[in-house]
Amino acid sequence: MPGKEIPDIIVGRLPVYLRALRHMRENGQQTTSSQELGESVGISAAQIRKDLSQFGEFGKQGTGYHIPYLIDKLCEILKVDRVWDVAVVGAGDMGHALTRYQGFINRGFRITMVFDKKQELVGKKIGDLTIQSVDRMIEVIKTGKVSIAMLTVPATAAQKIADQLVEAGVKAILNYAPISLNVPEGVIVQYIDPSTHLQRMTYYL
Amino acid sequence: MPGKEIPDIIVGRLPVYLRALRHMRENGQQTTSSQELGESVGISAAQIRKDLSQFGEFGKQGTGYHIPYLIDKLCEILKVDRVWDVAVVGAGDMGHALTRYQGFINRGFRITMVFDKKQELVGKKIGDLTIQSVDRMIEVIKTGKVSIAMLTVPATAAQKIADQLVEAGVKAILNYAPISLNVPEGVIVQYIDPSTHLQRMTYYL
Repeated sequence: MPGKEIPDIIVGRLPVYLRALRHMRENGQQTTSSQELGESVGISAAQIRKDLSQFGEFGKQGTGYHIPYLIDKLCEILKVDRVWDVAVVGAGDMGHALTRYQGFINRGFRITMVFDKKQELVGKKIGDLTIQSVDRMIEVIKTGKVSIAMLTVPATAAQKIADQLVEAGVKAILNYAPISLNVPEGVIVQYIDPSTHLQRMTYYL
Repeated sequence: MPGKEIPDIIVGRLPVYLRALRHMRENGQQTTSSQELGESVGISAAQIRKDLSQFGEFGKQGTGYHIPYLIDKLCEILKVDRVWDVAVVGAGDMGHALTRYQGFINRGFRITMVFDKKQELVGKKIGDLTIQSVDRMIEVIKTGKVSIAMLTVPATAAQKIADQLVEAGVKAILNYAPISLNVPEGVIVQYIDPSTHLQRMTYYL
């Protein structure tokens, strides 16, 4: 990470700001304030100003933020001013839903390969993509220089597949399997497990 | 919330501990230490001890944690010592994947109703459930006293549906639509947006 180290909690809020700013732009809006942005994402204006100030001076006192400029800057900071190729491993219901999801491309991501270990799925199509055998995964990912993967295999298979992804050169794994993964330093894992999110809410009910 | 207020960041880690403890139990393990639990979830032993100490005394110096006991206690704290009914709104790919997902029931949740606004989907089955019209959603959720919903509708429809869910008495929304929701106090929203998670990782690549 170049320059000073930014707390990950702040990094995690930037994609949320970016998403809200894009909605504003889609609605034809050109400028916003930290107040307005804050209300739309449920975060205080002071927090937003503080978060953004970590990366530079993006707003002007009195006139607020120029939305297209701030979007460009956030895309640059988050490195989604380009499109990243993504591999999906596991062509079950969730793998299908993700592969068919239209919302990635304008957020900086494009699924370019899907793998499964079930021989009856290999060769079948999901949209334009052909499901490939997981036996060829390491080779195909290496050749394609793909550095991001989404893991939608059962929990029992997830660690083994994660090890193979790391071997293939993957540096970021979005893990849908309901299990914590052990990965070497330099590889990042984020988790999506709806039960975990639901349990975090039932605590308050 | 009864008693002292626990920071939400701590509450958010408990489901992860619970998930790891259950994996240990499934593997026949009876006791664990904060060191071992920490290694399996990627959180320091000190942090785990500190988090758990907020809720009581669960471990013994020298012998560590009795896994079945700690599981019971965490289930109680997170209120998943029962099974919660959950409504899914939006029967697209993601709604289908969630409704068919087998992983909810042993984590404290059971999807009991699915809604969509598309008339051609209403009446079709997902597993044992029949897709119902979103026009009847408020009434059906009220009658069923369902307090948790998962929202998998397009971003453009999400706020309107969220308002209706709140009107129906829903207190916790897991939102898959890529947009921030405004809800009144007393209603909790958690977000699952894979692009946001991916962007949080590309920052570091």
